[in-house]
Amino acid sequence: MTASETRSLFAVASRPEVVSLAGGMPNISGLPLDVVGSLTSELVAKRGMTALQYGSGQGDPRLREQICEVMRPTGINAHPDDVTVTVGSQQALDLLTRIFIDPGDVILAEAPSYVVALGTFRSYQADIVHVEMDDQGLIPDRLREAIAAVRAAGKSTKYLYTIPSYHNPAGVTQPPERRAAVLEICREADVLIVEDDPYGLLGFDGEVPRAIRADDAEQVVYVGSFSKTFAPGFRVGWALAPHAVREKLVLASENSILCPPSFSQLAVSDYLAGHDWMAQVKDFREMYRERRDAMLEALDDLMPAGAHWTRPSGGFYVWLTLPEGIDAKAMLPRAVTNRVAYVPGTAFFADGFGSRSMRLSYCYPTPERIREGVRRLAQVIEQEMELRATFGAWSAAQRPGLDAPAPDQS
Amino acid sequence: MTASETRSLFAVASRPEVVSLAGGMPNISGLPLDVVGSLTSELVAKRGMTALQYGSGQGDPRLREQICEVMRPTGINAHPDDVTVTVGSQQALDLLTRIFIDPGDVILAEAPSYVVALGTFRSYQADIVHVEMDDQGLIPDRLREAIAAVRAAGKSTKYLYTIPSYHNPAGVTQPPERRAAVLEICREADVLIVEDDPYGLLGFDGEVPRAIRADDAEQVVYVGSFSKTFAPGFRVGWALAPHAVREKLVLASENSILCPPSFSQLAVSDYLAGHDWMAQVKDFREMYRERRDAMLEALDDLMPAGAHWTRPSGGFYVWLTLPEGIDAKAMLPRAVTNRVAYVPGTAFFADGFGSRSMRLSYCYPTPERIREGVRRLAQVIEQEMELRATFGAWSAAQRPGLDAPAPDQS
Repeated sequence: MTASETRSLFAVASRPEVVSLAGGMPNISGLPLDVVGSLTSELVAKRGMTALQYGSGQGDPRLREQICEVMRPTGINAHPDDVTVTVGSQQALDLLTRIFIDPGDVILAEAPSYVVALGTFRSYQADIVHVEMDDQGLIPDRLREAIAAVRAAGKSTKYLYTIPSYHNPAGVTQPPERRAAVLEICREADVLIVEDDPYGLLGFDGEVPRAIRADDAEQVVYVGSFSKTFAPGFRVGWALAPHAVREKLVLASENSILCPPSFSQLAVSDYLAGHDWMAQVKDFREMYRERRDAMLEALDDLMPAGAHWTRPSGGFYVWLTLPEGIDAKAMLPRAVTNRVAYVPGTAFFADGFGSRSMRLSYCYPTPERIREGVRRLAQVIEQEMELRATFGAWSAAQRPGLDAPAPDQS
Repeated sequence: MTASETRSLFAVASRPEVVSLAGGMPNISGLPLDVVGSLTSELVAKRGMTALQYGSGQGDPRLREQICEVMRPTGINAHPDDVTVTVGSQQALDLLTRIFIDPGDVILAEAPSYVVALGTFRSYQADIVHVEMDDQGLIPDRLREAIAAVRAAGKSTKYLYTIPSYHNPAGVTQPPERRAAVLEICREADVLIVEDDPYGLLGFDGEVPRAIRADDAEQVVYVGSFSKTFAPGFRVGWALAPHAVREKLVLASENSILCPPSFSQLAVSDYLAGHDWMAQVKDFREMYRERRDAMLEALDDLMPAGAHWTRPSGGFYVWLTLPEGIDAKAMLPRAVTNRVAYVPGTAFFADGFGSRSMRLSYCYPTPERIREGVRRLAQVIEQEMELRATFGAWSAAQRPGLDAPAPDQS
């Protein structure tokens, strides 16, 4: 089970002696606690009767206006009426799946894709079809072929789930021409796009990639979050959706949680209104860039031949592919013994692929710990390669169906 | 549509000249804002890195311990491991429905039942079967018959959804012997009980009814909330479930929202730890009791013969049944014209029943406004009765299938 895999990893990662390159928790140590503390007490003093009461199912009207401002750097020009506030972007994905998916319906997703989204899709018995990526993200030709194959199989593609910017877990970003091609293909085939963009403002060159939603308000539902640009503890995300979808989102959210927490919403709203939140985002970018640099430098220095990895220009993750014949999941217990943790690639596939790969997070540890973690990881991989060199032929002979000696006779 | 009915009512109710007996918002004006304000700023100062970060899917461990203390007055002796924190009790109901219900499965619910729960059940295509109540709540014999009828129809009853204490909308409470009978019937038939208890601590005589869950930890999932005993704006509720169900709840919650808001949970936790929260609950009881008294007195004084209503000993609601022949939903526009609002009874039934009834809330308005609201309502009912006395025979003659003159010939 993917979720329990992830849970045991989190348990392991919490031990102080282990360098965890597994978690995806943002590093919020740079947040101005004095600012946040005084805005919450002022919120209670000045608007306590609103902050402590039920609110609307769609979310606080002022926050929805501010969310339109927050989306503006991505090129999106939206109306607050089309925004639904959710309990993190996860609830937006959940509601969209609930609205669109009947058991057996197809969701297209990148290979690999965000692990918790895959869990949500599976919980509604969606049929997840992966679409190949390269270092420029989702490959448009593969998307076209996937849509055709699903149609040929007599099934219905309900939507494409995609993270075009600073992909989790792949660490790659789609250039504009690819985004245009994806949009064009989805328009032609009338496939909705669910564009998940938690990291869009966290590009290390300071530029914000233009969202697919910026070029089509009808074909795209855009999903955003304050978890990486401010703080996850309030659980405030949103979906920007065409009118008909938005109405269904609000109804589904009311059935699911009645309304999002007023206190969280007003706290985020006051933070956006009273604080230079974009300067904080710039600080976050610098901090994550330093960590990304540390990880790439360590990988360049320490990884054995045959391993390769992505070079993220934003976000939290590097996707590492091991030398041929090494299984990242099978190796994990030995890695943990050597005091380093990661998430095996299989977690990010619905179909068992990804066994040679892993996700490495550089968002949380210090640069020094990142280097140490990569050093430990490189040791484990090299031991694995030695084992394979020594016992490889024997192992190969153990494959079922081959005429090999029983283990106790070898 | 029930949800849009409710929404238009909320829109109307927000006009200041209308006395709204429609809403179910708790009256939180008595909350100590200075206490709440300073606890939130202290929370950020002392535990900001936890309060602003992701937390566990099951909820904060200390809060789950405190929840066990909060349940103790209901006779429940629980372990924190069996508690799952949710985004209000609504999310608990949503997750339970997601876990247990396949389209067409039966949920038994009181007649009438909580409107938003019915919406949630419907959204999973549950088949809702109502079970008759009287002034002592759900009638055990009717429950036994309903279970048998569902079985005879070859369908599967997944659970009984019940609010035994200070029922929304019926305003009645089950005595202990009825609860025992309900539990016995559900045990025999192996039907799970989902016991929803948002008002259990808000009894006007100061006694807390013993929860059904107190007498069986396996057959019952207990659902609770801080929305009525503290503040709804944090959206903190919970489910107490047998181990196997709890595991599924946590997985389903992670797929739905990743984790409940840390900030909300720690704020509620600090409130419980640092403040005499039970004294606040006692203040709430007194305030609601005064309002309940105002409503019952006004109803006794002003309602015409033929109307009857429940006499709640706790909670927020009176269930009013109109004189025969008057339709509460048809009357609503005239009531709003006369500046009083209520929720028509049909909203609380999945099957179109309840047209002669309405839910009156006394939780929010002042006693004076409640009296004025009931006065306006009585006027509208009397006008309706006069109309009926004048045109009743004619109206009756208009029923389809009778040989009546066409309207323009009368």
